[in-house]
Amino acid sequence: MKTRAAVAWQAGQPLTIEEVDLAGPRTGEVLVEIKATGICHTDYYTLSGADPEGLFPAILGHEGAGIVVEVGADVKSLRPGDHVIPLYTPECRECKFCLSRKTNLCQAIRATQGRGLMPDGTSRFSLDGKAIMHYMGTSTFSNYIVVPEIALAKIREDAPFDKACYIGCGVTTGIGAVLFTAKVEVGANVAVFGLGGIGLNVIQGARMAGADKIIGIDLNPEREALGRQFGMTHFIDPSQVENVVDAVIQLTDGGADYSFECIGNTTVMRQALECTHKGWGRSIIIGVAKAGAEISTRPFQLVTGRKWEGSAFGGARGRSDVPRIVDWYMDGKISIDPLITHILKLEEINEGFKLMEAGESIRSVVVF
Amino acid sequence: MKTRAAVAWQAGQPLTIEEVDLAGPRTGEVLVEIKATGICHTDYYTLSGADPEGLFPAILGHEGAGIVVEVGADVKSLRPGDHVIPLYTPECRECKFCLSRKTNLCQAIRATQGRGLMPDGTSRFSLDGKAIMHYMGTSTFSNYIVVPEIALAKIREDAPFDKACYIGCGVTTGIGAVLFTAKVEVGANVAVFGLGGIGLNVIQGARMAGADKIIGIDLNPEREALGRQFGMTHFIDPSQVENVVDAVIQLTDGGADYSFECIGNTTVMRQALECTHKGWGRSIIIGVAKAGAEISTRPFQLVTGRKWEGSAFGGARGRSDVPRIVDWYMDGKISIDPLITHILKLEEINEGFKLMEAGESIRSVVVF
Repeated sequence: MKTRAAVAWQAGQPLTIEEVDLAGPRTGEVLVEIKATGICHTDYYTLSGADPEGLFPAILGHEGAGIVVEVGADVKSLRPGDHVIPLYTPECRECKFCLSRKTNLCQAIRATQGRGLMPDGTSRFSLDGKAIMHYMGTSTFSNYIVVPEIALAKIREDAPFDKACYIGCGVTTGIGAVLFTAKVEVGANVAVFGLGGIGLNVIQGARMAGADKIIGIDLNPEREALGRQFGMTHFIDPSQVENVVDAVIQLTDGGADYSFECIGNTTVMRQALECTHKGWGRSIIIGVAKAGAEISTRPFQLVTGRKWEGSAFGGARGRSDVPRIVDWYMDGKISIDPLITHILKLEEINEGFKLMEAGESIRSVVVF
Repeated sequence: MKTRAAVAWQAGQPLTIEEVDLAGPRTGEVLVEIKATGICHTDYYTLSGADPEGLFPAILGHEGAGIVVEVGADVKSLRPGDHVIPLYTPECRECKFCLSRKTNLCQAIRATQGRGLMPDGTSRFSLDGKAIMHYMGTSTFSNYIVVPEIALAKIREDAPFDKACYIGCGVTTGIGAVLFTAKVEVGANVAVFGLGGIGLNVIQGARMAGADKIIGIDLNPEREALGRQFGMTHFIDPSQVENVVDAVIQLTDGGADYSFECIGNTTVMRQALECTHKGWGRSIIIGVAKAGAEISTRPFQLVTGRKWEGSAFGGARGRSDVPRIVDWYMDGKISIDPLITHILKLEEINEGFKLMEAGESIRSVVVF
């Protein structure tokens, strides 16, 4: 079949809209019509050429929602008409990682996914007979995609696609880091570095968990109002204090119980660790740092009881947890609408990247 | 009263044996006759001058065992004749840290202890009217010491002092890091970097916890036999493999579940982190690094599920856990005797430092 898709031909170049060829689903695979997709910073990172693992030509996008059109042989958990969110972190429920109960990082199809291919080692996308790579196992910048069954979360049918798609990455990454990775408890003090989409979702996760002080830290004072709307209780503009680490320690009588780095800046990652409480502070890295960048600290920070950790996809098991987060949204337990700042057509997708670059969007969503 | 003690007059100089003046216990304080004391690497570190917080003149030593001689006003939990181990990490059971149930790092007397003083801001030691500093709140290189009640663990009276003293630091630090900090579970794979006294105690802690593979890593092949005696199942000499991280990963089908750095080398700390298993590996820093040294890694190591942590005094609450560890020794659950390689008189204490420097001792113990 043919599908409309935004193709990334090479790093640093705008996407072009093409009618590409899409081969049908093979065994264990599912054809999905994507109804909406967010444009995430990771797409931007890859398109910019900064991602050393970026492959071209490819169809980017990893934050989508849609409807199952057709299932391949042996697909048991889905059928045409099901509403789904594609998962760049799948959940096979059979690999060592899934069975460990200690991580969400299913490794069942990681090797081929990292090479831009389906699990059988081939691509379903092509144009004029030349293969186009998949991206993060999802490629949601295409109106139709083929993905493995284990990389689809089935969600309720009354959830609007243009909001639910954001749960495919940003919402889950932020809220999940609080609830699934850190397991923040009632009464904890939380510091959140960076109030972009991830940071704001961390804030609402902390509110859900019943945190006491929820301190947002951002150089952009315009983010304060939005932060407070999501549950932030205190705001620090690092340019307005002598030392942001000391500022957090003072606000929290010794340091935050939990901190979250939502930027990808290794200097901030160190601040996030060092502002946590001696004896038990835990700092969770969410942001993706530049290739080759390293974090540093004195080991004394750890020997005196702080823990340095990370979170990918919010520690969420996609097929199990993503449907619950959709329920939370539909039940009004979490807020997404104010974060969707722009709705675009596929033809406007390069606009979305520009808005992100200029810091003018929280999340742009492309609706097919 | 007078007491015989080894005094450190200045960094880099041998200790001298002196008859120093010791003032009696004040309110909440206890006079203890030290019967035996280990010589620990931290004493060496301070005496060398490398410890930026080292104070002189001082009476070093922090790994002792002895008998209560006299108690000051308001001391309730101890009386003359009680056998005790002095605690450089006290347990007041009243401060925010003790009450948190999340850390053993009681802060009740930390400020004065760090300045070489008793909680009331004065020293009990003097010579010719000039104050001599306490050290780590213990100063076990003195035959008699005065310490706060909260810094004494009461132990059973049949435990031999020349073995029990080692529980005052090395044994507890190693075994505790496994049992109290990491809480290693049955079947886990454990990597231990550095097979000195701490590392060997980590190994026997891992054996107690029922670990599967217990991998010891040391440049000294002579440590292999002792390691195996304590429960080590595999030995790696880093000079005999291309890459020690890969060697551990191969031995453990993807990485150790837990690793422990028992050296204080920041390069090894990184190896210890990076050899742990994706998704859930936890690396515990025990070794004390050089002043100013920093640890580094790519944040990707943490985002993919590894955790970087530390342990001080094995995460043990001194008054609660140290008596249990003494019981474990007396019940034959842990082994200490093979680690006490030298018994010295106080006059030979500088010999003990030389043995340590030359790597010829595991633990030298001074018996009064």
